[in-house]
Amino acid sequence: MTAEPELEYTPHLPKKAAVVGCGVIGAAWASRMLLSGVDVSISDPSPDAEAILTEVLANAIAAWDDLGLRTDQQGSYTMCATVAEAVAGAEFIQESAPERPDVKKAVLAEIEASAPVDAIIGSSTSGIRPTVMQEDMAHPERLMVGHPYNPVYLLPVVEVVGGDKTTIENIRRGQGMYAAFGMRPIHCRVEIDAFIGDRLLEAVWREALWLVNDGVATTQEIDDIMTHGFGLRWAQMGLFETYRIAGGMGGFRHFMEQFGPTLDWPYSKLMDTPDYTPELIDTLVEQSDEQSGMHTIRELERIRDKNVVGFLKVLESNRWAAGNVIAEQRQ
Amino acid sequence: MTAEPELEYTPHLPKKAAVVGCGVIGAAWASRMLLSGVDVSISDPSPDAEAILTEVLANAIAAWDDLGLRTDQQGSYTMCATVAEAVAGAEFIQESAPERPDVKKAVLAEIEASAPVDAIIGSSTSGIRPTVMQEDMAHPERLMVGHPYNPVYLLPVVEVVGGDKTTIENIRRGQGMYAAFGMRPIHCRVEIDAFIGDRLLEAVWREALWLVNDGVATTQEIDDIMTHGFGLRWAQMGLFETYRIAGGMGGFRHFMEQFGPTLDWPYSKLMDTPDYTPELIDTLVEQSDEQSGMHTIRELERIRDKNVVGFLKVLESNRWAAGNVIAEQRQ
Repeated sequence: MTAEPELEYTPHLPKKAAVVGCGVIGAAWASRMLLSGVDVSISDPSPDAEAILTEVLANAIAAWDDLGLRTDQQGSYTMCATVAEAVAGAEFIQESAPERPDVKKAVLAEIEASAPVDAIIGSSTSGIRPTVMQEDMAHPERLMVGHPYNPVYLLPVVEVVGGDKTTIENIRRGQGMYAAFGMRPIHCRVEIDAFIGDRLLEAVWREALWLVNDGVATTQEIDDIMTHGFGLRWAQMGLFETYRIAGGMGGFRHFMEQFGPTLDWPYSKLMDTPDYTPELIDTLVEQSDEQSGMHTIRELERIRDKNVVGFLKVLESNRWAAGNVIAEQRQ
Repeated sequence: MTAEPELEYTPHLPKKAAVVGCGVIGAAWASRMLLSGVDVSISDPSPDAEAILTEVLANAIAAWDDLGLRTDQQGSYTMCATVAEAVAGAEFIQESAPERPDVKKAVLAEIEASAPVDAIIGSSTSGIRPTVMQEDMAHPERLMVGHPYNPVYLLPVVEVVGGDKTTIENIRRGQGMYAAFGMRPIHCRVEIDAFIGDRLLEAVWREALWLVNDGVATTQEIDDIMTHGFGLRWAQMGLFETYRIAGGMGGFRHFMEQFGPTLDWPYSKLMDTPDYTPELIDTLVEQSDEQSGMHTIRELERIRDKNVVGFLKVLESNRWAAGNVIAEQRQ
């Protein structure tokens, strides 16, 4: 895919959707769709799938209630024994299988064997290129990445990425369905590994791992610097808009003139992640336990959701950034 | 400095403070100190310094009012013609001169010539090592980095970094004064270039510049993915706590097992920033203008502050992360 002019997409709620792979991410996708009023068929080989769905859906309902979004017009879900059963008659299918190209390709083959030929298929992959995933597909033109950020039922962004064989018409159809789920579908026009957001996340992850590995900082210290510092900026203005302000009246050109040379200093040239030695993993686990071990994962999820709901309300009342997506969703 | 056990620090409001360098950062430091009830002497060679202070202080007062913090017990400020005049009798001095080692060293020499020998000196540098800055000082044991994040009057974190000659007693004194300004002073126990937060920021910056340079994404798209996605996470939980949740019930070890190999994929191995060619700078400027040019910088500052104040209120009411700092500040 190369750059092309942005066309409009039209929000369109699919009549029936399927979720293939129902771990935390798949369950959160199903929850967002159900709360949007869509009937969802779900397949996952794990015996825990329905339990995960039930827990995540309860979190999602609590979050939407707290946010003041309607939760009284939910679709219904069906747990299916097979992928074939789940995708039959689906207009939209979201795949959230394990993050391995061979697994993804096998699941896509199963999906294609039973799905309508024009069903849109979105993949939750964090980084596998759609061109790779669609290589063996009979109808590759409707396969796209739809990469979300957890909690999927609250964070509105989804990166939509087509492969070489994906048509722009199908990208628009996919964006329209994601929009109907209350999301902001951003079309990544150029296909690269890890797309856009995960490139940024990997850069931070690599740097943070070195800081822990080298004993410079603990996980708690790194997290505190984020949550008490630049994290509060990025929930409402991104890197570039923030730096525009730093440039003052001279705008972005002044920022580049003033800070460009500094930013080019060799503060860090780290390319690789440190080796995942047992020692490093032990260190990370111990520090994470000390930092967050007083809360269960469920508690952390509830705390996170409560905070994010609060942020979204603030942003909606200020008509800014992600708050605009919520405002549109209420209409 | 190598790792040592954390001692306690005691919040202590200095009787008199000095701000040397009064651009946007210095003015925001002065505003935070004034609002904390400290008298501040200010020096800056620019004729615009007082105008900048007045504007930033007005923003700070509006933000603290909005946040419900007291603004009726302000200290008073004095614009001084010389560094000597500003630092005379100061118990605490914050240096925010231009980001060049030679400039910093010259300013520190001026400060030392007139400041009390035991005054704590904090530097706002984003990355210069305190060991370098203190090389020629007569009393290097009280020089430390106190690296803030803008808007300094709202974001509570400050990274405190000592050099080879800085004493731990003075680090604690410095932390105590930053705490008395309503901040969360995090001691970076190991001295490295760019400390902790700016290492993470530089990694993101480098990656983002490549994305724009290579035509993969615009500044708007990158910012939208941040503000509608992981930015909302990092305002309340950092990288590690967020990934702990992603690991589910298995905790951080499970996260590493599940995602470690993926995170090691060669999604990005970018080490250098792209060359700052006129073309790249033009692209950035044009995209930034298109993205944010409908707002003046002052408007953007007000929008940012309003959003951040809202987030801090949410976090305070949830007794979480940066909200705890605000809660303590009210006591």
